[in-house]
Amino acid sequence: MNEKLAAEVAGKIAKRMERANKPVPVGVSNRHIHLRQDHWDALFGKGTQPRKLKDLKQLGQYAAYDTVSLVGPKGRLENVRVVGPHRSGTQIEISMTDSMNLGIKPPIRDSGKLQGSTGVKLIGPKGEVDLKEGVIVAKRHIHIAPSEAKDFGVSEGEHVRVRAGVGGERELVFERVLIRVSDQFRLEFHVDTDEANAAAIKSGDEVYLV
Amino acid sequence: MNEKLAAEVAGKIAKRMERANKPVPVGVSNRHIHLRQDHWDALFGKGTQPRKLKDLKQLGQYAAYDTVSLVGPKGRLENVRVVGPHRSGTQIEISMTDSMNLGIKPPIRDSGKLQGSTGVKLIGPKGEVDLKEGVIVAKRHIHIAPSEAKDFGVSEGEHVRVRAGVGGERELVFERVLIRVSDQFRLEFHVDTDEANAAAIKSGDEVYLV
Repeated sequence: MNEKLAAEVAGKIAKRMERANKPVPVGVSNRHIHLRQDHWDALFGKGTQPRKLKDLKQLGQYAAYDTVSLVGPKGRLENVRVVGPHRSGTQIEISMTDSMNLGIKPPIRDSGKLQGSTGVKLIGPKGEVDLKEGVIVAKRHIHIAPSEAKDFGVSEGEHVRVRAGVGGERELVFERVLIRVSDQFRLEFHVDTDEANAAAIKSGDEVYLV
Repeated sequence: MNEKLAAEVAGKIAKRMERANKPVPVGVSNRHIHLRQDHWDALFGKGTQPRKLKDLKQLGQYAAYDTVSLVGPKGRLENVRVVGPHRSGTQIEISMTDSMNLGIKPPIRDSGKLQGSTGVKLIGPKGEVDLKEGVIVAKRHIHIAPSEAKDFGVSEGEHVRVRAGVGGERELVFERVLIRVSDQFRLEFHVDTDEANAAAIKSGDEVYLV
């Protein structure tokens, strides 16, 4: 066999074996909303601020006490938590189960890619917003800091495979998990509640790149 | 290399390649209930029968127009469909999302294995039943007839791996999928709504043994 090829294959296998030993903690995202300033103002009142409930693992992000209701053609979802700080575009992340309850069909998208996504009516304590687009089902992804990305041998925008629920009744392998690298990120595998339930995993559990 | 071993490995590979070419249709199970006769009587009235809405793919099984409500410590689920005919033990199959909404933690179980499973309150048009056990989250499985099982090279009680959502945003591989063989069965991969949503698949889509 060609020696160069053999060395290359051996290198790839070594990298995969190395990866497979490093656990990645799970973060299950329940339905939530990121608001644009003017939408916040319309829903909660101009001059008010979100009240922080707790910091999230990703630096600078926090869950607020404040919540909104979503109203779709088929149903309503209460207590959808605001995640701060505000963003340049209002983005609502819900599960496909939520979508079916609301009667809407949002696309599966990476965070921030909202063009042509689905609309919904938002109701806050001080007003309503009839949102034309902004609802997505989030594509599963791994947040990772640059130094850790180097250790794992992964880079921004790459797709990896993730084994979850190892040894459990619902073990599975997620294909095409997006890698997102930033110095604001801390190592975390983000899935929604449907995906977490399908693998019978919860926040803090460990999954593995394969 | 040992020739017998080589032939054995080649045989296994051939079997897997053969399997991988045969699609298995998906059947997504929404929450539903199989009732014992006396529980039906208590909920719907003695002397009444379930009214058939439609036959299910598995022979002899049908969805009824009739529905019950489930009440748990945290919430309530309306319109849980009765599946007939009646069984020797009342069995309620719900998703983990449903479980969380009800505030209960049923085990992930094969159909019929109800000992030590979870209780819930049932409400029907004519009465209530305070069920001590019977709620499960169904373990995913494949229904298959004996002749087809032979074609696939699988047997009753075996576990297989299933690739779902091929080419889609949520492709994944389900591990440890139970094979259930009976001449009453027609080829179908049964998952609940959480699992279907995690793979972005719906009833009638095709999945593949790997």
